[in-house]
Amino acid sequence: MKKHNFSAGPCILPQEVFEQAAEAVVNLNNSNLSLIEISHRSADFISIMNEAIALVKELLNVPEGYSVLFLQGGASLQFLMASYNLMKVDGKAAYIDTGAWSTKALKEAKLLGEVAIVGTSKDSGYNYIPKEIKIPSDANYVHMTSNNTIFGTQFKEFPKTDQPLACDMSSDIFSRQIDVSKFGLIYAGAQKNMGPAGTTLVIVKDEILGKSGRTIPSMLDYQTHASKDSMFNTPPVFAVYTSMLTLRWLKKLGGVGAIEKLNEEKAALLYNEIDNNPKFNGFAAEEDRSLMNVTFTLADESDKERFDALAKEAGLNGINGHRSVGGYRASIYNAMPLESVQALVAVMKQL
Amino acid sequence: MKKHNFSAGPCILPQEVFEQAAEAVVNLNNSNLSLIEISHRSADFISIMNEAIALVKELLNVPEGYSVLFLQGGASLQFLMASYNLMKVDGKAAYIDTGAWSTKALKEAKLLGEVAIVGTSKDSGYNYIPKEIKIPSDANYVHMTSNNTIFGTQFKEFPKTDQPLACDMSSDIFSRQIDVSKFGLIYAGAQKNMGPAGTTLVIVKDEILGKSGRTIPSMLDYQTHASKDSMFNTPPVFAVYTSMLTLRWLKKLGGVGAIEKLNEEKAALLYNEIDNNPKFNGFAAEEDRSLMNVTFTLADESDKERFDALAKEAGLNGINGHRSVGGYRASIYNAMPLESVQALVAVMKQL
Repeated sequence: MKKHNFSAGPCILPQEVFEQAAEAVVNLNNSNLSLIEISHRSADFISIMNEAIALVKELLNVPEGYSVLFLQGGASLQFLMASYNLMKVDGKAAYIDTGAWSTKALKEAKLLGEVAIVGTSKDSGYNYIPKEIKIPSDANYVHMTSNNTIFGTQFKEFPKTDQPLACDMSSDIFSRQIDVSKFGLIYAGAQKNMGPAGTTLVIVKDEILGKSGRTIPSMLDYQTHASKDSMFNTPPVFAVYTSMLTLRWLKKLGGVGAIEKLNEEKAALLYNEIDNNPKFNGFAAEEDRSLMNVTFTLADESDKERFDALAKEAGLNGINGHRSVGGYRASIYNAMPLESVQALVAVMKQL
Repeated sequence: MKKHNFSAGPCILPQEVFEQAAEAVVNLNNSNLSLIEISHRSADFISIMNEAIALVKELLNVPEGYSVLFLQGGASLQFLMASYNLMKVDGKAAYIDTGAWSTKALKEAKLLGEVAIVGTSKDSGYNYIPKEIKIPSDANYVHMTSNNTIFGTQFKEFPKTDQPLACDMSSDIFSRQIDVSKFGLIYAGAQKNMGPAGTTLVIVKDEILGKSGRTIPSMLDYQTHASKDSMFNTPPVFAVYTSMLTLRWLKKLGGVGAIEKLNEEKAALLYNEIDNNPKFNGFAAEEDRSLMNVTFTLADESDKERFDALAKEAGLNGINGHRSVGGYRASIYNAMPLESVQALVAVMKQL
């Protein structure tokens, strides 16, 4: 029995991607060489990198004037790189704090300049998205996290600003249509909707770079990587290849618009059960509910043992809430089939 | 026909590692879950990370008081991290320049303090290892590259110094016995003798950390990663797992001492042909020849077309020299079988 994998990340990817990636690790394109033993300067790998970049551009409608990069270090390294590249010397940045990841991001920015927190939902345990955002006119950029995996909150609209908008989209990129032209910088660790852990997607508007007035270490400088087509140093070959496979799958399925509809359907099914089943409560404010991470608690904690046993019996994997919040969290990323959500709902009804 | 893969990195790994890694991408330990879809906080992955760390400690005889880390960003990010962690504010570091990688490493260090180049073979195109190294007593640390993949040079003895010795061992770690206690910091991109591209091994002496007097960004601070057992953020799961498999293979084979003998045998076979065949010249000074990357040129450039054709016919892959040097380079890492070296020698004799 294949399990229903609700892990928050790394997480489920399409079954065909697992199979194709495994095949390439033994024999890439019938070359009799493994994907992971060939030179990253070989024609085979350059064509993989180019296809991955082209798929990102196509699926997200990336306009001219943006660089698409595959880097390493996860979103955590982007917290630092975003500020290194966008914060001016003696500068200031505006951060919207929706918990955990935003908090970590602004911590790194504080090393390089002043940080104005222009919105936060800390007062209520980060269960909503702050709406009234006032951005100081002297902010060098505005930073936000589009979806919070831990609390299950998600921006439905993006703040309007004249300054470059930098957005950590690790947990909802490729799950819904976005207008890339509204952003200066988008970054996302691969390990939700794009591929395995080990690579980070960066989409950056070229014209906002090179203006910080600071000397940026080579590996932290987006311009270094953009000028070398993400090959300044050896890229994480397997993670890039497997991301490319996942993006191929998404394109075949109809692209971001098509998956968005499926994601809405899956989320509606689950939130509907939460709202109608008196044994469960939703965690996030209704209007800010994430389509990716559905967080909920038991109305009566004494049901826990039985619910956990039922879930296990049904093959539900990874539904425990984040250790900092407790309760339950069902992550229902792009590759999660409707049947897995149905299986969870069935268990909730059984309780 | 399986090709003979002489690539400089990413490079050949044991065939059984390709097969085991591929199997895990489809089904890890018969869990019915893929290696790349499970949480990095799961018992399964924690046990993988622990085994990888334990194998490093065992195979290299790492003494107490050192942290073993699996990070991201390649040796290129270590160029920066080494100096961020070890260079004091207004400090100074001593760098030995054996070309390319050393040069890149010291470029990053210069952003943080003064760099004294205490030895260089730049005068003769980096074809030898500088021997007379005088280290200023006020250097915070000494930095070197143990093996240069491009020029095919390798330190046979390490400089003696009272300051922490930081060594980039990307291209020869696990290929020969070393005394870890003589080093403050060892780092190595995985993609030669340890595993696929996408993770970087760091072995650092705990007592040299926390003394720089500077605020280090979280992701660049070795103490961050050491305190979280390399799980401060999501690790590159596939690269760590496949490194673990490669280290298991090495242990089964008898460990570093056993592979060192095989490496010496393979290198001797090839250098012997270079020295005795008038159609070829070795590139590196004899006493500094690398056991990992064997660099040579044709005595008569007009032989190139024929030699390349013979090599292709024999299934020899990746023997072109680095674009900055030209000629030929046969990388004969741990996983390279003796038969592949014999195949190359046979082609050289045929010319």
